Amino acid sequence: MALIVQKYGGSSVSDAEAIKRVAQRIVAQKKAGYDVVVVVSAMGDTTDELIDLAEQVSPLPPARELDMLLTAGERMSMALVAMAIENLGFEARSFTGSQAGVITTSLHGNAKIIDVTPGRIKEAVDEGAICIVAGFQGVSQDTKDITTLGRGGSDTTAVALAAALEADACEIYSDVDGVFTADPRIVPSAQRIPQISYEEMLEMAACGTKILHLRCVEYARQYNMPLHVRSSFSQKQGTWVVPEVEESEGMEQPIISGVSHDRSEAKITVVGVPDKIGEAATIFRALAEAEINIDMIVQNVSAVSTSRTDISFTVPKDFGKEAVAALKKVQEKVGFESLRYDDKIGKVSLIGAGMRSYPGVTARFFDAIAGSGTNVEMISTSEIRISVIVEEDQVDEAVRAAHSEFRLDADQVEAVVYGGTGR
Amino acid sequence: MALIVQKYGGSSVSDAEAIKRVAQRIVAQKKAGYDVVVVVSAMGDTTDELIDLAEQVSPLPPARELDMLLTAGERMSMALVAMAIENLGFEARSFTGSQAGVITTSLHGNAKIIDVTPGRIKEAVDEGAICIVAGFQGVSQDTKDITTLGRGGSDTTAVALAAALEADACEIYSDVDGVFTADPRIVPSAQRIPQISYEEMLEMAACGTKILHLRCVEYARQYNMPLHVRSSFSQKQGTWVVPEVEESEGMEQPIISGVSHDRSEAKITVVGVPDKIGEAATIFRALAEAEINIDMIVQNVSAVSTSRTDISFTVPKDFGKEAVAALKKVQEKVGFESLRYDDKIGKVSLIGAGMRSYPGVTARFFDAIAGSGTNVEMISTSEIRISVIVEEDQVDEAVRAAHSEFRLDADQVEAVVYGGTGR
Repeated sequence: MALIVQKYGGSSVSDAEAIKRVAQRIVAQKKAGYDVVVVVSAMGDTTDELIDLAEQVSPLPPARELDMLLTAGERMSMALVAMAIENLGFEARSFTGSQAGVITTSLHGNAKIIDVTPGRIKEAVDEGAICIVAGFQGVSQDTKDITTLGRGGSDTTAVALAAALEADACEIYSDVDGVFTADPRIVPSAQRIPQISYEEMLEMAACGTKILHLRCVEYARQYNMPLHVRSSFSQKQGTWVVPEVEESEGMEQPIISGVSHDRSEAKITVVGVPDKIGEAATIFRALAEAEINIDMIVQNVSAVSTSRTDISFTVPKDFGKEAVAALKKVQEKVGFESLRYDDKIGKVSLIGAGMRSYPGVTARFFDAIAGSGTNVEMISTSEIRISVIVEEDQVDEAVRAAHSEFRLDADQVEAVVYGGTGR
Repeated sequence: MALIVQKYGGSSVSDAEAIKRVAQRIVAQKKAGYDVVVVVSAMGDTTDELIDLAEQVSPLPPARELDMLLTAGERMSMALVAMAIENLGFEARSFTGSQAGVITTSLHGNAKIIDVTPGRIKEAVDEGAICIVAGFQGVSQDTKDITTLGRGGSDTTAVALAAALEADACEIYSDVDGVFTADPRIVPSAQRIPQISYEEMLEMAACGTKILHLRCVEYARQYNMPLHVRSSFSQKQGTWVVPEVEESEGMEQPIISGVSHDRSEAKITVVGVPDKIGEAATIFRALAEAEINIDMIVQNVSAVSTSRTDISFTVPKDFGKEAVAALKKVQEKVGFESLRYDDKIGKVSLIGAGMRSYPGVTARFFDAIAGSGTNVEMISTSEIRISVIVEEDQVDEAVRAAHSEFRLDADQVEAVVYGGTGR
């Protein structure tokens, strides 16, 4: 029998009514002839409320105990979902991450899944039960302590469990209809993407599209698990994230899948770095030792007159202060002149597997950005992505300009489809 | 090093402030040179709130899932207590019932402890950590599912863990100062009992004294574990429940330890039962099959003229309807005449190991009850207890009269102590 893993986020199980609605959706899937395993997040604001309680008790709660506390959240939601399903006359059993065999590293608050051994889940599924599994949590291989997986943890649980159970698909439910060509709050004419490749989805996730976490998509790609991102509040199809996007009959895939943006980064410029071998390595080693992730890096050729160059890069805003402090420690050693810090920036990215074979994409993108009156401060590219750093205030305009240039707006796409040009 | 197990009830960990106060008390014990293992209940009203949530989702929540849900309550309180201790600079680790090795039967909602295998707790204690264990919960030996222990479960967890760890004592903290000679709301001059035997405590618990549950006292007696019942809101000594009450120098123990009362029962009279062998057995088998616990039973000799007798007994009010229904089913078979049901009754019990050797106690008790204008409807006795059923409205007066007759009031006891009469 085909097996579907479904994952419901906090907004889909926010209260008793929402839980009953989710139960009906799960039962409908079961009635349609599928085995169903469900992964749930904590209800609505439960996690925030628990963190608040922890902070009332201790200004710096120990990570092991914070994990113990937070995992109570999914424990509640999973039991309630199971009850609601039983009330509809179907057998349901809930399992903690530990019971479901989610084995992790012991890094509390940000553990990584090492293995999934879902023996109890398989057994329960074989007995005809619908299984409800707590997302976001596992048990440490070394210490047997309860761990949490950090951001995107519930989605990752779902995909990892789907892979271990060799499920036919993994459905990720939230309160949005799927992945859009741009954030609809910025581009009202943005539209749902019916299919997208893992590669493109990874680029979008890395560039600020919040709907799926990078880890979850990486896991899905590794196991070739098809993801269906959709809304628990409607019956509409969402976005399928798959190995290869199928070409519809008589039509090529669009060149560009979407435009992402991200306001969470800050830009640091190290000014006047002596042009000697190993200076850049010293700079980035200092940041690595402070456990700061770097995103874009730009270095120009040195000015001939000074034999010095500037190195710019972006870091998450939350780590801006630490990054500057870490760099100041190596200023004397490296001999750079000064640091510039700017957190009023944003990143705009154009993503599409099709751009590989269309050389004009870059030029059109920059034309569009320029046409919106936006100044580009940094550029970085991959095979299937172009990203620019712009002033924070200009992000919206740049996104809209790029979106329109590549004919992603709803009315434009209609034209593409019926016009059959493929561009 | 001496090991103390402490148990804190829901009112002692009702919010962040209460939790911090409890943490200080735990740390004080540790500083005084003890190893400490702590058992906690869920915070304040958490359990009720979770039950309410369950009922919103399902009118009859399945027991397995209700246990999964409710055990989230202690998970939160134990993690928070551990955090508060760590914040005071001491190492603390929290453990679920399952992690602490509390192995139970699989009867969800009312599981019995089969064994306690506290390997992880011992290890953590040996490493110098204070252990915080979730009360009220365990893991089923057969199904590996999470179970709850039902009423008095957290106290029972504490005593069972203390026994398995060979602790020196088990302290039960709540919001009252100990066990009193009567309910202070009825007898304002009632006073704290400094020491009481397991036997007497069992009788008091069975007769309506709510402070300790029968199961917990039975467990303590079985393992000879000294219990110290005390308040988490003061530093005062509470009541020690011990194998033998020590006699203070130059003074005998008082004959009577206290007066208990209970308004939770109803009285059923089966009228006109034919005086034939096996009729009573048929009646009580019918009740046993309906899983109804019977407390007092009274049967008089048959009236010679009719060869019929009346059998009266008490059952918990909550089961009154079921009891009557079960009896009606066997009315024809037994041939009794009618049923009388009365739930406006109360039980008043006089408890004291000393009464074994003082034959006058019964007479004095009945004199006192009669003197308060109270009519006695049923009587039952044990070696160390006399109980009477009276009208519900007369319970308070009867309790006060008995309490006073046996000189348990605070000022009277002073007289006994200094007068040295031992009465």
